[in-house]
Amino acid sequence: MTNTTPTTNGSTGRVTVLGLGDMGSAIARTFVDHGFATTVWNRTASKSAPLVDAGATAAATAAEAVAASPLVVICLLDGTAVDEVLAAVEGAVAGKVLVNVTSGSPAQARANERWARERGAEYIDGKVMGDPPDVGKPHVRFPFSGSREAYEAHEPTLRLLGGIAYHGEDAGAAAVEFMAQVAMGFEMLIGFLHTLNLVRAEGGDVTAFTERLTDSLSGYAPLLTMMANAIKTGEYGPDLGPLNVQAALMDDLIGHRESVGVEAVRMREVKTLMDHRIATGHGNEGFSSLFELLPK
Amino acid sequence: MTNTTPTTNGSTGRVTVLGLGDMGSAIARTFVDHGFATTVWNRTASKSAPLVDAGATAAATAAEAVAASPLVVICLLDGTAVDEVLAAVEGAVAGKVLVNVTSGSPAQARANERWARERGAEYIDGKVMGDPPDVGKPHVRFPFSGSREAYEAHEPTLRLLGGIAYHGEDAGAAAVEFMAQVAMGFEMLIGFLHTLNLVRAEGGDVTAFTERLTDSLSGYAPLLTMMANAIKTGEYGPDLGPLNVQAALMDDLIGHRESVGVEAVRMREVKTLMDHRIATGHGNEGFSSLFELLPK
Repeated sequence: MTNTTPTTNGSTGRVTVLGLGDMGSAIARTFVDHGFATTVWNRTASKSAPLVDAGATAAATAAEAVAASPLVVICLLDGTAVDEVLAAVEGAVAGKVLVNVTSGSPAQARANERWARERGAEYIDGKVMGDPPDVGKPHVRFPFSGSREAYEAHEPTLRLLGGIAYHGEDAGAAAVEFMAQVAMGFEMLIGFLHTLNLVRAEGGDVTAFTERLTDSLSGYAPLLTMMANAIKTGEYGPDLGPLNVQAALMDDLIGHRESVGVEAVRMREVKTLMDHRIATGHGNEGFSSLFELLPK
Repeated sequence: MTNTTPTTNGSTGRVTVLGLGDMGSAIARTFVDHGFATTVWNRTASKSAPLVDAGATAAATAAEAVAASPLVVICLLDGTAVDEVLAAVEGAVAGKVLVNVTSGSPAQARANERWARERGAEYIDGKVMGDPPDVGKPHVRFPFSGSREAYEAHEPTLRLLGGIAYHGEDAGAAAVEFMAQVAMGFEMLIGFLHTLNLVRAEGGDVTAFTERLTDSLSGYAPLLTMMANAIKTGEYGPDLGPLNVQAALMDDLIGHRESVGVEAVRMREVKTLMDHRIATGHGNEGFSSLFELLPK
């Protein structure tokens, strides 16, 4: 990291960071490096030493740390830790902007916002999609949501952390973005492991296959966009091909997986959904129309 | 389609196409348009009329069609149809190269190859990944496998069909490629529907989410490559982060999905696999190490 004091965008000022785990420390260090008067606090005080060496000020208590800056970034272990620290600082939050990037659910974010409003503070929820060493780089994404006014006022400061985006005034929206993006990643990755297991079972080369797969993945973006539009409008074209035709393909995939001992959980689920749509007169629609069968 | 007779690569010659469904017709038409003396046959003879109008020759029987050309492309409804047609042509295949692009399993492809060899024919299995109107364009992929000599001899002709690739002498390899690529696509797509259901349940905008998702998907290629290398070598680094840390995230994802009524089949499976790896002393390894728990 480079020490550039002050920054060229004139965003220097005072900022507090509560929580100095790997991520909180990386965030605090980013602010220090950009010339902010950075106040830090951690339950285990020793964690602040490297940051104090770099130019930060360690506060003795969380309330003292909150009092030191108009902008307070909270990065703790989990929602329980957030609840405990907020209960300890209580009245010190009046007039502050709290930016909580601790992992947690949309419901927790909304509850935190209510708590903050009741005490005269503005609340922004955020989630971190990336690793501590990469904080400050654009590929570390920080979805934010909550008070628009507070977000816009502090956007230049928050932008120093990475690829930020504002997801709306629902304080839960950043957590929804995180939950949805991360889950989609795990859907892909566990499907990928089972697919490689199929390739291995058939004597194929998993790395050569993966090279071809990554090529074809780039072709999915237009398809996903088309499907999302169909789901939004409820007008389901044949996308991949009509379900009447696709259903036979699913039987082939299931039969093959069974023959080589590879699980077929999702393939069977897809076949069941296709059969249901076909039986109810939607056989000319495409894969995206299966969305209609998901629980609302 | 353009009528370029003869082609610049000197690959004009005689070719036969058995089966004139949408895909077989598109393949035959591609050969006609490139100046090949194209013989066609279909069980229902009327299907050949548009191709005859375009310049193809219709054979009265499948055996007659096979006799007309050194290269015979077979594109039928399914493996049963292939078995019936092959039984009917029998001895006519001696000395021919059979290229079967009918959908079917790796095991069917290997059985077809044995049948062909026993009758003095060479066999290439192929699969079509794309739609009939796009045959001839590079984004329609044709994985091929089987006789290398026959493939190399006819590669200039086969290349006219689209983005061809040779997957090795195991006749089943093209079908493995198809099964693995298509299943991976369905893993993504069904996971995508459930993810959009989560976004909808939380009041989000499915098209705006999808736009961001397609951006982030492009970042998965290096991760998949790294994971495939780890799986190939059995040396599992922490990739996404050590399982010890990732497991808590899975609990968050599962808890959130349950709270909004969205299924969590894969998330629970991942959590179970992670717990097992952690319990057996592999908590410092990454997601890719879950591969070790899949049935061999």
